[in-house]
Amino acid sequence: MTHPWHPIPGGVTAPEGFLAAGITAGLKASGRPDLSLLLAPEGAVCAGTFTTSLVRAACVDLCAERLAASGGHARAVLTNSGQANACTGERGLVDSVRATRAAAERLGLAEEEVLICSTGVIGVPIPMDTLLAGLDPLLAALTAEGGAAAAAAILTTDLTDKQIALEAQLGGRRVRIGGMAKGSGMIHPDMATMLGYLSCDAGVPAELWQAMVRRAVDQSFNAITVDGDTSTNDTCLAFAAGEPLPSEHWDALEAGLTAVSQHLARAIARDGEGATCLIEVQVEGAPDAAGARAIARTVCGSSLVKCAVHGRDPNWGRIVAAAGRAGVAFDPEVVALWLGPHQLMEAGQPLAFDRPAASRYLRERAAGAYLGGCGEGGDTVLIRLVLGSGTGRGRAWGCDLSDQYVRINADYTT
Amino acid sequence: MTHPWHPIPGGVTAPEGFLAAGITAGLKASGRPDLSLLLAPEGAVCAGTFTTSLVRAACVDLCAERLAASGGHARAVLTNSGQANACTGERGLVDSVRATRAAAERLGLAEEEVLICSTGVIGVPIPMDTLLAGLDPLLAALTAEGGAAAAAAILTTDLTDKQIALEAQLGGRRVRIGGMAKGSGMIHPDMATMLGYLSCDAGVPAELWQAMVRRAVDQSFNAITVDGDTSTNDTCLAFAAGEPLPSEHWDALEAGLTAVSQHLARAIARDGEGATCLIEVQVEGAPDAAGARAIARTVCGSSLVKCAVHGRDPNWGRIVAAAGRAGVAFDPEVVALWLGPHQLMEAGQPLAFDRPAASRYLRERAAGAYLGGCGEGGDTVLIRLVLGSGTGRGRAWGCDLSDQYVRINADYTT
Repeated sequence: MTHPWHPIPGGVTAPEGFLAAGITAGLKASGRPDLSLLLAPEGAVCAGTFTTSLVRAACVDLCAERLAASGGHARAVLTNSGQANACTGERGLVDSVRATRAAAERLGLAEEEVLICSTGVIGVPIPMDTLLAGLDPLLAALTAEGGAAAAAAILTTDLTDKQIALEAQLGGRRVRIGGMAKGSGMIHPDMATMLGYLSCDAGVPAELWQAMVRRAVDQSFNAITVDGDTSTNDTCLAFAAGEPLPSEHWDALEAGLTAVSQHLARAIARDGEGATCLIEVQVEGAPDAAGARAIARTVCGSSLVKCAVHGRDPNWGRIVAAAGRAGVAFDPEVVALWLGPHQLMEAGQPLAFDRPAASRYLRERAAGAYLGGCGEGGDTVLIRLVLGSGTGRGRAWGCDLSDQYVRINADYTT
Repeated sequence: MTHPWHPIPGGVTAPEGFLAAGITAGLKASGRPDLSLLLAPEGAVCAGTFTTSLVRAACVDLCAERLAASGGHARAVLTNSGQANACTGERGLVDSVRATRAAAERLGLAEEEVLICSTGVIGVPIPMDTLLAGLDPLLAALTAEGGAAAAAAILTTDLTDKQIALEAQLGGRRVRIGGMAKGSGMIHPDMATMLGYLSCDAGVPAELWQAMVRRAVDQSFNAITVDGDTSTNDTCLAFAAGEPLPSEHWDALEAGLTAVSQHLARAIARDGEGATCLIEVQVEGAPDAAGARAIARTVCGSSLVKCAVHGRDPNWGRIVAAAGRAGVAFDPEVVALWLGPHQLMEAGQPLAFDRPAASRYLRERAAGAYLGGCGEGGDTVLIRLVLGSGTGRGRAWGCDLSDQYVRINADYTT
């Protein structure tokens, strides 16, 4: 990273003034935590990006409408992780409004200042008595150390929680950005991840914040894919509140915001259902950045590439075939391809390469521990495609496709 | 079918005057048949549709160029099924030209009248000595009964061959259409299937024939998906030769051509790697036919829907979520959904349905024998989505996603 940010412990409550809580309200049959709240300081701006799916949950509509009406201002977001509240008709919206109203009364806020996200089973209404009964204990648990509990309470099929906090000195002043996310299946976000939450303790004008968040999301949550299935509930909400940050530090702030978003996005891809490794595809030399990202995501999403990585097979033919169908113009005769340190193609044709060593690279990456943190983990398979002499660069993240993915999704009724 | 066509035994050589052959030349390590030839009668027109992938094999370039130069005329197509001849650089084109020249000399044709298709491993050149040594025995085997041998010699990972022939009386005259195809993995054709060959013994003007073939391909090969991966070699070639057919029968001819193409396309989807059943998605009430087809194919290609079908799980939520991300406008509040005879949704919301019976429907379809023929097989899972009151209808075909698919593609180096 070429920016002033360094990682610190914690997540969404690392920035000054943010409170959070996560509890078990009884919405999940499993008895795992299922209700959380994130509370931003007074005066917070809030940017949101949402699923582009036509079939979207009531809570997504509610968030989008309230942020549009307020010009990007909100104070809190409630999250229930038992039921997605999608395809629940009129009742879905009524329940969402009722939940935010009950939370707002207890917080002393206007109903419109509270947002709601839902994740879990599609088509099942939220058991409202259970949710409402959980609000008092939830508010009692609100603290500045509540980030980890909140990060745990938003999960569904995830195996690990996903949190990060970064800190930098900007103009002699400490600024922090925190984040948490969830997602493991039905992951091919088109606007935002399944659920992502970002917090920042610097003040930024609402419109600028929305633009920064959108750019960061495009380079992170919108660049991952687990199974190509865009969710009905994809939402990313980003709060910023604090002393206004002078404009000369806006670029640095955006770099940090992007780093936080990319960390969380990578963590979601790594936790893809049945995955044994993270795949990062880097595309260079494309006509433009959007084209580079499109190619990177197409390669990341190819079932055949994902299976080859799972089989520890350095199958360059599937990689270049996937690139060719991305709908982006390039000259196949100049393509060069690397798998980690091994160059597999030059000028559009295969090179003689050390196949056992390339296969060993894949095997070792899959065996690597998940390191987390901000850097590349030891379990990241790196695929690098150089398409020509264009200036467009882009990255995407995904995971391998295992028989475990099929069993999870064949045996589990969502 | 609402047209005059009925199935008859045979394949590409069922139409009058077509000859074919298929032999084992030694291109495949397995010792299975690997070299075939289809010869059309004098004066044949030939229409071709090809992969839209930027990374395409030398043989695809050669076919496209020769058909463009001749205005849609060709007499023969040679097919080698050991090596795809993609990503083989200049040598790929030289080898393709050399093979067609050698075949043309033996057939007494001009080099430009002979086309070539290749399928198999990407990045490996064709062993030309082996191919050239196979041409004499191949030509010696050319007969009017050679359709089945040719259909066998074009296969790679396919488990079954794919052939059909239809016959109709048009204006008191017998007309026949035949076809063969191959494909099992890397199947998400965008122009044509992996390899499809059609023959017809009625004369049709070249431009009209190309238009008919393109429309038939859009409703058949371009409507199937196995794994979302468009191949480098997708090609469909259709030959027509015989007494000119009066224009009042052109619609009937196109109906037969579409039926032959759909049969072959369904057979490819059914033979998808690791598949246990065929999935047919019917979309009605869309704004237009293209939108309906796009939604149908998106549902067919959803990994989560495919896993649910494999798990015999009537998971309507995944189906409607996939429809929502197809990029086609519809009102989610009016969607109705059927799985076979079971209605699962009405007005955008789930109905109470007999879940064990719906699951049994899926189980029984997967256990159904593959009936082949022109009608719907007993192993077809039917998903029907009614989106609204638009006139757009479309269909797509795919297959379930099994752990077997992952094992095939993780363990097998292409």
